[in-house]
Formats: sequence, structure tokens, C-alpha cells
Amino acid sequence: MGFNIPRGTQDILPGESERWQYVEKIARETCHAYQYKEIRTPIFEHTELFSRGVGESTDIVQKEMYTFADKKGRSLTLRPEGTASAVRSFVENKLYANPVQPTKLYYIGPMFRYERPQTGRYRQFYQFGIEAIGSSDPAIDAEVIALAMSVYRKAGLRNLKLVINSLGDKTSRVAHREALISHFEPRIDEFCSDCQQRLKQNPLRILDCKKDRDHELLKTAPSILEYLNEESEAYFAKVQQYLTDIGISFEVDANLVRGLDYYNHTAFEIMSDAEGFGAITTLAGGGRYDGLTEEFGGPKAPGIGFAMSIERLLAALDAENVKVEAGGGIDCYIVTLGEKAKDYSVSLLYKLREEGISAEIDYENKKMKGQFKSADRLHAKYIAILGEDELAQNKINVKDANTGEQQEINLDEFIRFMKANTES
Amino acid sequence: MGFNIPRGTQDILPGESERWQYVEKIARETCHAYQYKEIRTPIFEHTELFSRGVGESTDIVQKEMYTFADKKGRSLTLRPEGTASAVRSFVENKLYANPVQPTKLYYIGPMFRYERPQTGRYRQFYQFGIEAIGSSDPAIDAEVIALAMSVYRKAGLRNLKLVINSLGDKTSRVAHREALISHFEPRIDEFCSDCQQRLKQNPLRILDCKKDRDHELLKTAPSILEYLNEESEAYFAKVQQYLTDIGISFEVDANLVRGLDYYNHTAFEIMSDAEGFGAITTLAGGGRYDGLTEEFGGPKAPGIGFAMSIERLLAALDAENVKVEAGGGIDCYIVTLGEKAKDYSVSLLYKLREEGISAEIDYENKKMKGQFKSADRLHAKYIAILGEDELAQNKINVKDANTGEQQEINLDEFIRFMKANTES
Repeated sequence: MGFNIPRGTQDILPGESERWQYVEKIARETCHAYQYKEIRTPIFEHTELFSRGVGESTDIVQKEMYTFADKKGRSLTLRPEGTASAVRSFVENKLYANPVQPTKLYYIGPMFRYERPQTGRYRQFYQFGIEAIGSSDPAIDAEVIALAMSVYRKAGLRNLKLVINSLGDKTSRVAHREALISHFEPRIDEFCSDCQQRLKQNPLRILDCKKDRDHELLKTAPSILEYLNEESEAYFAKVQQYLTDIGISFEVDANLVRGLDYYNHTAFEIMSDAEGFGAITTLAGGGRYDGLTEEFGGPKAPGIGFAMSIERLLAALDAENVKVEAGGGIDCYIVTLGEKAKDYSVSLLYKLREEGISAEIDYENKKMKGQFKSADRLHAKYIAILGEDELAQNKINVKDANTGEQQEINLDEFIRFMKANTES
Repeated sequence: MGFNIPRGTQDILPGESERWQYVEKIARETCHAYQYKEIRTPIFEHTELFSRGVGESTDIVQKEMYTFADKKGRSLTLRPEGTASAVRSFVENKLYANPVQPTKLYYIGPMFRYERPQTGRYRQFYQFGIEAIGSSDPAIDAEVIALAMSVYRKAGLRNLKLVINSLGDKTSRVAHREALISHFEPRIDEFCSDCQQRLKQNPLRILDCKKDRDHELLKTAPSILEYLNEESEAYFAKVQQYLTDIGISFEVDANLVRGLDYYNHTAFEIMSDAEGFGAITTLAGGGRYDGLTEEFGGPKAPGIGFAMSIERLLAALDAENVKVEAGGGIDCYIVTLGEKAKDYSVSLLYKLREEGISAEIDYENKKMKGQFKSADRLHAKYIAILGEDELAQNKINVKDANTGEQQEINLDEFIRFMKANTES
């Protein structure tokens, strides 16, 4: 009987996993420079955390969660995103008590949404994200955006588009909300049933609807930017100033609405502009959430963060033809002839590896010819040849695969020789 | 309303997550030297994979799995261990077709078992594991054990105990099984109900029972080692020879039985010998499984691997008092006075970070004194001070926190200066 991987998930195999390691390394190093520290929260949380934290009216909570009961009947959900868990942890572990704020966190790991699988969209997908919780300095907004852009650029992406918007503070949002309701209500029956529900729950999300995106009322909808009060306007201006100072170009798009309920002030998306990248061009999205810690029973601690898809980052690298080296060749392959030489090679191999030298021998009982072929397939930089004669003379033959040069080395000198020649 | 983390799970927070990164880095580097490549399989699989792959008679499958139905009614299970998924992926993705075998894989990630939470035992726990699939060379058994020992030693552990055993091949196991049944059957009613079931299902597992571990029949039970046929004996001898050649000490324990059904030949456990480490001393366990690929519908491809608990590795480091540095201080903190200087510092900060220099400013609107305090708390190596006067003169004051030495630097020279002084 054969077993298949669950629908909508993928195995990341050798040859491909090196590319994941490559982008994750860049993410971690960038976080170090920007002083974001890693947090690891559980794969599942109490379901209520997401319905409150992500928002009851969102597609995620209404349709896309992997929810199940544990053996005690508690409702658990595989995390569909990272912010709710990070903020839960910030509150539960009292990270707000740290004397230096904001608390700057990053996470990398799998998330889960039950969606129709399609190219570039998986039910288990990986996100790298950061959260800065505990400051409402617009410089932090710029920092968060800058970090995301920095990761993409270091990974090798060139065709990036940054779009920002402000959703304003609560007062601005209430005013805008009223304007939206007045705008849509007279003709709401022309909209999908989801939008009809959204009208009173969260009319902002009508602007984000995939079904109604071509309706003419969307084009004439009142812009949030016209409803920003003075404070919100000043905040947004400062964020833009910092981005300009730093040298990051952006566009303002008043229609940029994040799908989650708790966002306010700065919202942003980073898109790929690469040709042939396909329909889903958003690489990362984020924004400011100022009431979430209180929603979770903690003190006021305004936050901002983003999440980026690792899968889409890798797809964007493909679209821009950025090659990531997948490991390269091994340092040394030991070819042996005869049982004694094979036995001896096992401890030799061990010594090489303990020095950090990547080395390999044959485990398939191949003849010498087959072993040379394996050495070749593994792109060995050096091929060491050990037969019973060499062993009796305490020698080993070492061939530089690049130059073809071959030399006999004293066996006791072999590890030192390899160390000297593979130092990077 | 407050939200709590689900029972039996933990948040790994900054200060602690650096220790996880430390051991994972060692694991990855060691895998590179030994040429094991990373595989990432999904967090959940079809439930059937584990009941077949781990074994119907195991506690894991009978009691401890997080099993749930997806929206289509398919039974899914959060992976309780890593081998079944790796072997499923090996078969499904035809990794056996690669001309160089065995296929050498490693994984690091969360696993899930619904057990009673206790010190050092979580419902979500992390495992690092490797699998070498496609060779029955005893040198591979030694390699797998050597890799595990190497990771522990590099992490800093000294008090390690390696225990090995052989479960023999199928013929040996059948003979031993019969002997076990004859041994226990006459008095099986003195054993727990689980053991009574095990008698016919898998009598080997009676030796592993926690409830009956003090029963006198366990001490006199027939040893598998007496039932090894010639081939199995020779295999086991070779593994021991290789370990001795390499210089790894071990004990043979005929009672070492792995909890999973599909093991044969080599089985091993690595324990901590550190004082005060507590009751659960097993750090890693592994062994050879020679029929699993066929069980999963693939060709014959004998495998061997191990899984080690990251939590227990970290606990063992604690028990041996091995300190892991948690990140250290930042390279530079910029103290600013006045709005202009603050604004300017935002792009200065950006430039530092883009050079890989870890740098920070204040986001809490603190006065200078508070900013100096933050610099101190973050263990900044350099403190750069920028006021409006300095800005007007295109200068910045840089203080070496170590020596207390202070100097005025041209602003245009600052990044170069910091780069030169933080090169590692």
C-alpha cells in the first residue's frame, strides 16, 4: 500500500531545502542587525485566540481554520498566522515588563489555512514575520518596512513594489466607516452576500472583496485618507518622511486594506513586479495594530509587524532568475579497495568530519569504478584512494578533482592536508 | 479576557531561543560534514501512515496521537515522530532512484504526543533526527551513532552513555519471539493488561513495560543475543568493531528494546550520566528498520536513523552547567537629543544595519539619561551621541563602552568607523 502526502501540503526535499535555509539565514541575520529576537510559539492555540485576535468576520476564522478538539474536549486550532500567538505570548509572559521597549520579536515557521490548493498556495505554508510591540513611534513603522525590504534585497530580488496606506486612528476609522456605510447601503443588494454582511460588521472589507472588485461603487468609495484626523495625518506623514530619508520608494494606495480586523494607522504590502510571476504578487503584508494587547487582557502596548511568505519569496527569486547555490560539492570522497581499506576508511572518514570537512565513502559495496562515479556525482573536491598496498605502506593517494593532480600522502598527514586544503 | 498557552506546550522566548539556535546550528553543521541533507515534511499526515509506520500496538498510536478530521472528513494526525514521514517521502518522491545511496536525510521540528505533561515532557516537543535509507552496510550504523554523539559533544556534553543492542534479522526475531512467549505465557496473568495483549502481538515490548519492570520474569527472560543467527551476529560484531575503531565507547544491553514495531538489527540509546539530571535520562534513541519502505509501497531499502529531543539536550546542558551565550550585546546604540537628531538617526541606524552592524535607538521618547540606560541594558559596545550641535557641524560623538574612551567623528566617516571596529 502506498501513502500520499496530505492534499495542499508539500515535502521540501534536499536540493530545494538548501534554498529555504538560504532565505531563512538572511532573515535571521537581518533580524540580528535590527535586533529582533526569535520567539517560538506552539503550532496550535486555543481556537478563541484566533477568533478574537484575527477577527470573527475574516475569511480565515469563518472558513479556513484547522480546528479540532483534544482528548479533553478543548477546541484547538492550528495557527493560521503568527501575530495572535506572538501577542498572546507577549501578554502571558509579561514581556511588557522589560525596561527597554518595544519588544522586538521574529518567528519563522509553518502556518495552516484550509484553502483550495493552487499554484503557490498551500494549506501548510511558511511565514517569516516580525512584531514590534510597545511603541507608537513612527520610526518603528519605517523600521519594520525597511527590514522586510532589506530581506528581499539581500535575497536577490530587484523588482519590488512597496505600497503603503494609513487606516488612521479609531476616530478617523469611525468617521470613514460611517461614510462607507452611507456610500454602499443604498445599493448593497448589488453586492455578494459576504459583502452584505460586511456592511455593518466591517465595511472596510468590502474594498477587499474578490467577487465585487469590479463594481463601480468601489471606484468612487470614500477614501480613508480624506477622513484621517490631524494626528493620524501627522503620523502617516512622518512614516513617509522616514521611508524617504532611508531611501525606500513607495506608493500610497488609499484602497490598501488589510484582511485582519485589528489594524490601524500604517498598513503596507510588498509586491513582486517581476514579469511572469503570476497572479499572486503580494510577497508580504503588515501593519499597525494598536489595541490587540488589551484585547488579550494585557496593558496598552501598540504594535506593528509583518508576515512574509517563504514560498512566494522563493517563487519571486525564480521569476527573477536568481540562482541559489544548493550546497555545492563535498570536500572529500574516499575510494577504497578491499575490506581492510574499507574498515580503515570508516575511522578516517570520522576524523575528517569531526574537523568539519564534508566527506563520504561508499555504502553500497560498489567496485572502484562505481566509487569514482559516486565521487563525481557528489562533486567531490578531493578524491582519496586507499587500497591494501597503500594501507600497508601507511600512505594514501589524494587526487585534486579540479586539477587532476595526484599525490601520495602519509596517512598520518592526511587529515592535516585536507584541513589545510578545505579551509574556507 | 486573558488567553493562555495550550496545556503541555511552551513558548520559547528571547533569551532562551538563542540556546535553541545554538544547538540547531551544531546539528546542521554536523549534518553537513556527514552529508545528511534537510527534509521538511508536513506537520500532519494521514493517520494511517502512523498506525502502519509506528505500529498499531504502540502507546503512541493507541493513546497519544492528536488525530482530527479535515473538512472533507479525512483523518489527519499531527506527526508524533519523524521517521514515518521521512520514509513516506522517500517512497512517494522516489528518492531511491538517486544513483548514490543511501539517501541521507535530517529533520528538525516539532512533534506532538498527547501525554501527561511533566518536567521535561511536553505535548509539543522538538526533535532533531536523521535517516539513512538504502544501505545495510554496518558502517552506516556506526555513522549514524557517531553523528549523534558528535552533536552532543560539540554542544558541550561530557557525561554521555551509549547503549547498543541487536534485535537481529527476521529469523532471529521469530526464534526469540517464540522463546519469549514460552517464557511469559505460564505466568502472564501476573502481568498488566497491556502486557497480556503484548504477549501475542509483540512480546518484545513486555521487556519495555513501565508497570511490570520489576517482575522477576523480566530478569530471567531469554536474551535476543542468544537467538541471533550467524548473519545477525556478524552484523552486530561489525557495528561494534567500527564504533571501537572510531573511538566511541558503548555498552551492550540485551534488554534495550525500542518502542516502535519496525526495528531490527542495531538499536541504540544515548543517555545522560550527569548528576541531578532527573529521571528521564534518555537523550536520543534510534535503530535500524529494514522493511518500512516496502510497508509503504516502495522497493526494498533498508534504513537506520535516530531522533533526539532538543528539550532534553538543553536540559542536559543545564545539568552539566554548560553555558550558552545568549546573543551578547549590540554593536551600537545611538543616543539622540532633539527631533532633528532623532530624525537623522533613523537613516543612520538603517545604514549601520545594512552593513550587518546590530544597532538600536530609542522608540519610547526617552530623555538622554534614559537612552544611556537603555544602551547599558542592551550591552552596547559603542554609544554614539548625536545632538543638534553635532548635526550642524556634521559630527558625531562615539564612546567605546568598554574603555570609556570618547571621540568626535565626522558623520560621513561614522559607518566606516563602526564597520572597522565591529568586524568579527
